[in-house]
Amino acid sequence: MTAYQRTGALKAAIDLDLFTSIGDSPATAEEIAARLQCPGRGIRILCDSLAIFGFIAKSGSRYELTPDSAVFLDRTSPAYLGDTARFLTAPAIADAFANLAETVRSGRVHTSELGTTAPDHPVWVEFARAMGPMMVPPSQGAAQLVPLDPDRDTRILDISASHGVYGIAFAKANPRAHLVALDWEAVLAVAEENAAAAGLADRFSKIVGNAFTVDLGTDYDVVLVPNFLHHFNIADCTTFLKRVHAALRPGGKVVIVEFVPDDGRITPPAAASFSLVMLGTTPEGDAYTFAQFRQMLGEVGFHDPTLHPLPPTAASAVIATK
Amino acid sequence: MTAYQRTGALKAAIDLDLFTSIGDSPATAEEIAARLQCPGRGIRILCDSLAIFGFIAKSGSRYELTPDSAVFLDRTSPAYLGDTARFLTAPAIADAFANLAETVRSGRVHTSELGTTAPDHPVWVEFARAMGPMMVPPSQGAAQLVPLDPDRDTRILDISASHGVYGIAFAKANPRAHLVALDWEAVLAVAEENAAAAGLADRFSKIVGNAFTVDLGTDYDVVLVPNFLHHFNIADCTTFLKRVHAALRPGGKVVIVEFVPDDGRITPPAAASFSLVMLGTTPEGDAYTFAQFRQMLGEVGFHDPTLHPLPPTAASAVIATK
Repeated sequence: MTAYQRTGALKAAIDLDLFTSIGDSPATAEEIAARLQCPGRGIRILCDSLAIFGFIAKSGSRYELTPDSAVFLDRTSPAYLGDTARFLTAPAIADAFANLAETVRSGRVHTSELGTTAPDHPVWVEFARAMGPMMVPPSQGAAQLVPLDPDRDTRILDISASHGVYGIAFAKANPRAHLVALDWEAVLAVAEENAAAAGLADRFSKIVGNAFTVDLGTDYDVVLVPNFLHHFNIADCTTFLKRVHAALRPGGKVVIVEFVPDDGRITPPAAASFSLVMLGTTPEGDAYTFAQFRQMLGEVGFHDPTLHPLPPTAASAVIATK
Repeated sequence: MTAYQRTGALKAAIDLDLFTSIGDSPATAEEIAARLQCPGRGIRILCDSLAIFGFIAKSGSRYELTPDSAVFLDRTSPAYLGDTARFLTAPAIADAFANLAETVRSGRVHTSELGTTAPDHPVWVEFARAMGPMMVPPSQGAAQLVPLDPDRDTRILDISASHGVYGIAFAKANPRAHLVALDWEAVLAVAEENAAAAGLADRFSKIVGNAFTVDLGTDYDVVLVPNFLHHFNIADCTTFLKRVHAALRPGGKVVIVEFVPDDGRITPPAAASFSLVMLGTTPEGDAYTFAQFRQMLGEVGFHDPTLHPLPPTAASAVIATK
């Protein structure tokens, strides 16, 4: 019942850059307070709480980073993930959990009609800014799974491109590929920025709008659908995959990235519990099993669906061929 | 970072009385939805999440209570604790955790000047209503530790009586004792109700007001100080204990109930992490170690302080003699 207090402590430590202030110099609460120019009581209590929750270690009166917090929560680390806190605790997500009973009872998102599936919902700009770094390892894993023909020009469509990280990984792995990113306009600005930073400005173009209705174009070698289908019900996912099928060239592949629970729907925990986020924030979304994806994909003409975990995240890729 | 989602799922299940609806009849999501007259999707996803988080068990497509949820979360159980959710997630507590960084940075409660220590703060009525049942086992344990003289009339003062459960346990264990309960006026109504329900109406009286300034009376055999001192700094606790000392008869005992961390301040976790709640909700409160209580008590003239865990809770009693 008090789990939210762990979220609060971790978020406060990230907001204060407390992990970075410790870095590789274990320190007392007084020393950390001096580094951060904060009063001592709050830093002492927060540090003890972080030690209790396992985010830092306490030895005598000194606190030091754990191996995990050194890699992921020290801002000087290339794998820093502290910014994910901004999205994971954004009101558009967190408010859903303040009255989940009302959502269950009514069958409707209690905060708004469409939740985060509303057109141009601003939380997706936050997502694009905050979650990109976390997607780099799985995007590289996914790109390895689907090498494109190096001997001709190829085309990649990245649906709900967001930060653009998935499309960028594919484009970097395939120097003759052109990347088309689709998302809401404000979100695409982030993808465009990231593509330019990755040196892909001249192989990048955009489609602005609703992925269910906008013209997707044709003759793609691969269509990426990362973290998109879970927002919708099975019928709408199937309708959407039919559009993807039409946009691919024969032999082209769809690469769906999702949290995919086992058939029993309670394992693996990190993937399976994602359903709850979809309950809270979308009218009809869910985390789908591989059996459900196989069914949807088969229905619209894809064949040979396969499932691939994308470590170190809890996400998996579902890949199928036109 | 997403721990708050566990709070949201558990609170939703309590709000919906989902645990009670399962009771000793394991059921599918469809059956539970029918029992609760809710749409199926939300119940299915919520049940899976509760299974992932360990609050219920899933076997095939049926959900059943775990031993813990059967005892504590089924409303028909005499040990039902679901109402604690109302206090543990009350805005006066939970809002503190939405921006703990600001509290740490400023050294001030970010939601209000005095946090929950403001006079007549309404959250204490919520506390008195919601938390009483959880206090029954530790209050009985505490009463066993300090038997009063059965051969004469005795007097008990219950400071910050709240639900009154501690004083009631002492009064029931000592049939010749008169119980005086002190708290804010609206809170005392709950204590009075509970004392009457326990058959103590004719051995019960009240002192309304601020425990630091109101006349406490004299000649008490025992003064109970449950869940009170953690709201204040050491100097104020010491000043307050001096008042308690003056109110006791010679040989009388003070019984402090608190979450008491070990000297290292990070164990036991449930007691030690309580400091964080005091950081978020009070200007200067903390969870104090036994060494700190020994120091405060010695300074105002108490002797022989002892520490007693009060299972099954994370609270302990600190007892000392005038």
